[in-house]
Formats: sequence, C-alpha cells, structure tokens
Amino acid sequence: MAVQAASEQSTPLPGDAGVQLGPAAALSCRECGERLPLGPLFACAACFGPLEIAYDFPGGDPARLRERIEAGPDNIWRYAPLLPVPADVASKPNINPGFTKLVKADRLARELGVTGSLHIKDDSGNPTHSFKDRVVAIAVEAARAFGFTTLSCSSTGNLAGAVGAAAARAGLRSCVFIPHDLEQGKVVMAAVYGGDLVGIEGTYDDVNRFCSELIGDPIGEGWGFVNVNLRPYYAEGSKTLAYEICEQLGWELPDQLVVPIASGSQLTKIDKGLKELVALGLVEDKPYKIFGAQAEGCSPVSRAFKDGHDVVRPVRPDTIAKSLAIGNPADGPYVLDIARRTGGAVEDVTDAQIVDAIKLLARTEGVFAETAGGVTVGVTRKLIEEGRLDPSLTTVVLNTGDGLKTLDAVAPTTGPSAVIRPNLDSFREAGLAS
Amino acid sequence: MAVQAASEQSTPLPGDAGVQLGPAAALSCRECGERLPLGPLFACAACFGPLEIAYDFPGGDPARLRERIEAGPDNIWRYAPLLPVPADVASKPNINPGFTKLVKADRLARELGVTGSLHIKDDSGNPTHSFKDRVVAIAVEAARAFGFTTLSCSSTGNLAGAVGAAAARAGLRSCVFIPHDLEQGKVVMAAVYGGDLVGIEGTYDDVNRFCSELIGDPIGEGWGFVNVNLRPYYAEGSKTLAYEICEQLGWELPDQLVVPIASGSQLTKIDKGLKELVALGLVEDKPYKIFGAQAEGCSPVSRAFKDGHDVVRPVRPDTIAKSLAIGNPADGPYVLDIARRTGGAVEDVTDAQIVDAIKLLARTEGVFAETAGGVTVGVTRKLIEEGRLDPSLTTVVLNTGDGLKTLDAVAPTTGPSAVIRPNLDSFREAGLAS
Repeated sequence: MAVQAASEQSTPLPGDAGVQLGPAAALSCRECGERLPLGPLFACAACFGPLEIAYDFPGGDPARLRERIEAGPDNIWRYAPLLPVPADVASKPNINPGFTKLVKADRLARELGVTGSLHIKDDSGNPTHSFKDRVVAIAVEAARAFGFTTLSCSSTGNLAGAVGAAAARAGLRSCVFIPHDLEQGKVVMAAVYGGDLVGIEGTYDDVNRFCSELIGDPIGEGWGFVNVNLRPYYAEGSKTLAYEICEQLGWELPDQLVVPIASGSQLTKIDKGLKELVALGLVEDKPYKIFGAQAEGCSPVSRAFKDGHDVVRPVRPDTIAKSLAIGNPADGPYVLDIARRTGGAVEDVTDAQIVDAIKLLARTEGVFAETAGGVTVGVTRKLIEEGRLDPSLTTVVLNTGDGLKTLDAVAPTTGPSAVIRPNLDSFREAGLAS
Repeated sequence: MAVQAASEQSTPLPGDAGVQLGPAAALSCRECGERLPLGPLFACAACFGPLEIAYDFPGGDPARLRERIEAGPDNIWRYAPLLPVPADVASKPNINPGFTKLVKADRLARELGVTGSLHIKDDSGNPTHSFKDRVVAIAVEAARAFGFTTLSCSSTGNLAGAVGAAAARAGLRSCVFIPHDLEQGKVVMAAVYGGDLVGIEGTYDDVNRFCSELIGDPIGEGWGFVNVNLRPYYAEGSKTLAYEICEQLGWELPDQLVVPIASGSQLTKIDKGLKELVALGLVEDKPYKIFGAQAEGCSPVSRAFKDGHDVVRPVRPDTIAKSLAIGNPADGPYVLDIARRTGGAVEDVTDAQIVDAIKLLARTEGVFAETAGGVTVGVTRKLIEEGRLDPSLTTVVLNTGDGLKTLDAVAPTTGPSAVIRPNLDSFREAGLAS
C-alpha cells in the first residue's frame, strides 16, 4: 500500500485545528518521535514511520479514575478518558462494542494441564461478532471529528461488516471495497447494512492499491478509510482489550497473554494499553509475557522469531485462518520486539491443529471461535506442551471472532454422532443410550 | 407431543424433595391452579393443563432489591432472586446469557414516523446469538437440581446450539435430536460443541414423537429435555427479557411491546415478568400493550385474533421465518388473551415484508436481525401505518436472533452496488463517487 506522508497532502486537512478527541494530544511518529497535529494522516512527514496517538492523560487519584470507569457504560466508552474520542462519545449513536465476556475456562484448563487460572477473552460477543467493532468505533469518532462523510475500507470479511454496521448507525455513508469473487455469505454480511459495496475485479492487493489511489485523488476528499488515513485512531481501539482484561481480572495485569497476529497491530496496542494502565496507577506493575499466535500457512513473524531475525520476510498466505492471512504484516518488527522484551514468544500451528483447537474450546467451554481463536488456543496448547507457557500462572487467550463466520473450517469433520429411525430400538443400536 | 402427567410417572422423581431453586416454591397448573412439588414435570395430574412455576418472592423494600439487582453480574443472574435458580447460580460454570443491548433506534424511528422513543431489544448479542440461551441456562439449573446428567432437546436450529453450548460449559452430557436432512450449516452449529447429535429419519414431528417416547422409557432416566420435562423452568427464562427492558428503560414499563410468536411462550412470560415487576414495586404500574408478530406463512394466532376466536386452528407452516414456524402453538390461546386484555393485537407480515424489514433495521441501526426480527420490525411498521400502534409512545421491539443464521433470507436481494476494474475511471463510471 502506498504511504501517503503528511507533506504530500495537497488539499487543506479537514479539522486540522481545534479537533477535540479527548485526551489525544497529537500524532507522534513511532520511529523518529516527530509530533504532528491531529489529522487524517498515517505516516511521518520526516521519516515515513507509522504515526500513533500521543496523549495528555488526566492526572489525579487512580482510585477516582477506576471508579469513574466502573460507573461508565458496559462498552468501550467506559474508557473514554483513555481513548482518542470526544468526552460525550457515549451519548452519540454508535454500535457500542466491547466489554465482552472474560470466560473463566476451568474445563479447558484441566484439559491443558493448567493449574493457574485460564481465561478466554471472547470478542465474538461484539455487535458484528469480531474485535473489528472496537477499532471501527474509534475510527467513526475520528471521521466525525475530521468532517468526513463517507466511511470506507478495503476488506475480505470481518472489517466490511463492522464498517457497514457502524456507518449505518452513525448515519454516515459507507463505501466498502472487496475482491469481486468473495463467497456469497461474506458479500451478504458486508452489503446488508445498505452502504455501497464495490466489487473490484482483482486480488485483495489490487483492492488495496485502488484504495490508496482513491485517497490521493479529489474523489477521495471527505472519505475516511478506517485502516488507512484513519489508521492511527482505528488502531487504538485494540487497547480496550487490554483495559477490559485487566478490569475483569479485578484491576490486575495477567501474567501471560496469547494474542493472534494478522498485521500485528492488535498485539502492539494491547502492550501499549497494559503499559498505560501501569503508568496511570490503575494496576500494579509486574512482569507479563505476550505470546503471538499465527497459522503455519501464514507465519512470517513466527518464522522471524524462531530464526532470531528483526526483519519479517513476507510470505504468500495459505491457511484456513483467513482473518489472519496477512503475508506482509506491517507491525511484525514491533511484535518481535514485544515478544522478546516481555519474555514471550511467537508460535504457529497447522490448519489441522486450528480445527482441533476450535473443537476443544467449543467442547470444554461452549465457546465457538473463529479460526483465529483456533490459532490462539492451539498455540496455547503447543506452548504448554513445550514448557514455554507457565501453566501455574494467570493466562488470557484471545478469541477475536465468531465460529459462525468460518463454518467451512470445521464442517468437513463436524456432524451427527448417528442417524437413526425414529424408534427406541434404532436408538439403542446406535449405542448412545447411556 | 404426548402429554406426560405427574401421576403417570412410574419411577421415583429425582430431586422431588429438598430441591432448592431460589424463590421457586412449587409447580402450579395454569388451568386449574393445582399445586405440585418442584420436579421434572410439565403437565397437571388433575387436568393435564400446563404447569408453571409459583414463587415465594422476597418481601421488603423495592429500592433495596433494585440496588441488589444493579450490583449483580451483567447477565440474567442479576435477577436470580426472581428466577427458579439457586442463589449461588452466578458462581457456577454457565454461558451467562442476557443483559443484551437495548438499542435506542432513532434513525429507524424517523423512518417509521415514530415521535416517541423506539428501542430494539437485541438478543443477537447472546452467547449463541439467540434468546434461546436465556431459557436453556435456566433449564441447566433445573437439570442440576434434579440430578440429570444428560441435557437434551428436539430442535431444527437455534435451540440445538444453545443446548450444546450450555451443556458443554456446565460439564453435562448433551444429546440433541434433529431431522436428518437439516442444512449442513445448522448441523455444524449443533455438533461443534461435542455433545451427541442424532439425526432422525423423519420430520420434526417424528423427532418430537420420538423424544416423548424416550422420556417415558427407562433409557430416558436421568435425561432433562429442556423443552419437555424441564419446560416449566426453561420457559421462565423469557421473563428476563421483560426485566432487562424495564431496567434498561430506567425501571419503567414500556408503553408498547412487539414480540414474535412461535409457541407463544415467550410473549406470555414477558407479560408475566412485567406483572411481577409491578407486584414487587420495582416499577410503577401503568397500562402497557403487547403486540404479537407472526409471519403470514405461519399465522394461526394472528388469524384467530382477527377472526375474534379464542381457539387457534393449526396450520402447515410455509415461511422463511423458520424459527417461528410452529403451526400449532401451544400457548396461542394465552397470547390471544394477553393481546386482547392489554389492548394490543396480533398481526402478520409476508416473507417479502420480512426481508424488507431486516434490511431496514440493518440500514438504519446497524443491527442485522434474524428473520424473526424482520417479523417484529415488519409488524411494527404495519401497525404504525394502520394507526394501531401509537407512534408518540415508548415502544420496544424484540429481535430474538442473528442475521448470520438466516443469511439465505436476504442473500437473493443483497449484493454489491457495482463491480468495477481497479482504477478511478471505472469507479467514476459506476456513479458512486459522491
């Protein structure tokens, strides 16, 4: 995807001055530290590094802030004081994602030999059933602040639905771009919210290139691409996973987290969120380890971790875990850094292990995960078996999506125990009458 | 389905004595008022009428009870003092359904000409994405209390998944019966939780007859069929919809509710729940109207309402709203009674109107409803257009399931706005560059 730097912007930035996004103070380059005013930018004018949000957080008594959060709504807006959103965000029409269940997974723990406490952070409970609702909800607020009237993205699945739903509820136009040959189910999920959906004759890479072209063209004025020119805001949505996990653990850091890797952004923002909670005094500082999880068929970060490299070599994805199938993950180097710094690791599992893990989680905890959840549970199992994840500690495993969206992954191996005639003899013969 | 009365029970009832299910005091016949001790029974020994739960509710200050509820967990167990469940229910492994979003639907309201406040109670946010999680969760507690070790049901869809998930998490065996020729997607959703799933060579009626036979046979000892021998407990789960709606409205009764009708049980229990809140002093009494919603292709209760009959004549269902397709609704007469007593109505909409309503709700509020939600939204629109639902009042419309489960309903009419080549000229030609 072409990088559009601040200095290249030819038209005046909407909302450059006077943008009110709560504690967000500026954009800051993750590479060189350059600061820029808040605007719809994603790359540093000086070094082309990725921009992220710099905050002026409220000072004061952490106990008061905790109380304020706990008295807030049952969604991500309870953390509005820590997010790049206006203070009155909860009163605006929004799909209100977040505060999803942290499932204490005692039966799974027993199967995996975990003697500490094991939890599944289950983001299938979000409005469109994936963590994408979190990031899109933040992008909507940025789009409003910058005066954008069309919400857009390129997508192959979860993101299209999340953008369509969020735009519908916010009263924004949406125009989403997808490869033209997506499965009908995914097309329906993306189109049902009534925004424009445009099929592009080409691959997902072609879709991305086209979107970059559109942003640079006058046609794209007034368009907010959630994961391009709104990316610094959008990405912050993943911090809320860290906030919720700690609050749901009773305002404590977990010892170990297992997080899926697609672009790697989510993992880096979870780490950022944990560090913010410590800095604000909302949780007590202690060491924690972050483990990244990939599918073997798209494991460039895992490969680099194992090889001891700092650079991630792109791959061509070939896995059932399509929501993680990014062959050239932008935040890969940052993920490597975090895994190494915290004493975690990056590991991968095969497609067969992903399917097994989906079924294991469903059978033990009644949680039907997307393939990405199969990746994290599968990697957790592997790390425990290899003695690299401590089974006596508190571990949180992320499930970022819903099994209903990836039925094909388990369908070939999931069916009835028996087919019988409607009588007791036939049932007895089936051997299930215990 | 054969009625099994209390006196026919040949083996000793498990848990007959000393069953502790919170405020549940006895089983009571809805027809003759006969009282029986709590047990796995569903029909009156005296008159074969349906049994329901009679309660000894806590007395005392309503404000204290409200506080206790508000301090409870973010799921149906916050209402444990009003449900047939043990006091410590929230600490047991359970899928913890409920406390789903009450969406203030301002954009939908504008489209429908509603000047009062319009809300969607969106039960797609439950763990397996339908209201069935509520009723099954209560049935699990009854199964535990009666010492049952297998959780079972007959199902064609939503219920099978809810039973599979709840049993998995509770550590109970499950054995669910379905017609052998269900679509693969539904089979996968029912089977993935690892319980036994049995395909029956026959229709759904054959499946039901077989289940009744099984309950009467020694094989069925220790089996809890959630919607047969646990039905009185199971059905109470629907009361929680009424509780949540009132609490989410700030402890006020709505003026008007639009509720889907399958067996009619949900509507009668919502009415029961509202009356309980008034009796306990948790909300102030005022008149409310309950409207029932059916699909034209399965509208026996709507037909009886319009004809002024007290009796519901069975029909053969033919509608896309499969989760409502019960041609002989057991609680039909009670529904008629409630609609007439409260000044509501029962109305139906065509399959085309259902699809339109699903899209309307998605487009205005970002909520993708199951066909049952299309039925309630469609009926709401029809009632407003005909001047039978007051647009100046507070109205709550139920969406009891998730559009992801009934994609086929909207697929034929939901697709891309355009398919283009990946360049700006092609995009301009499509006329979407506004």
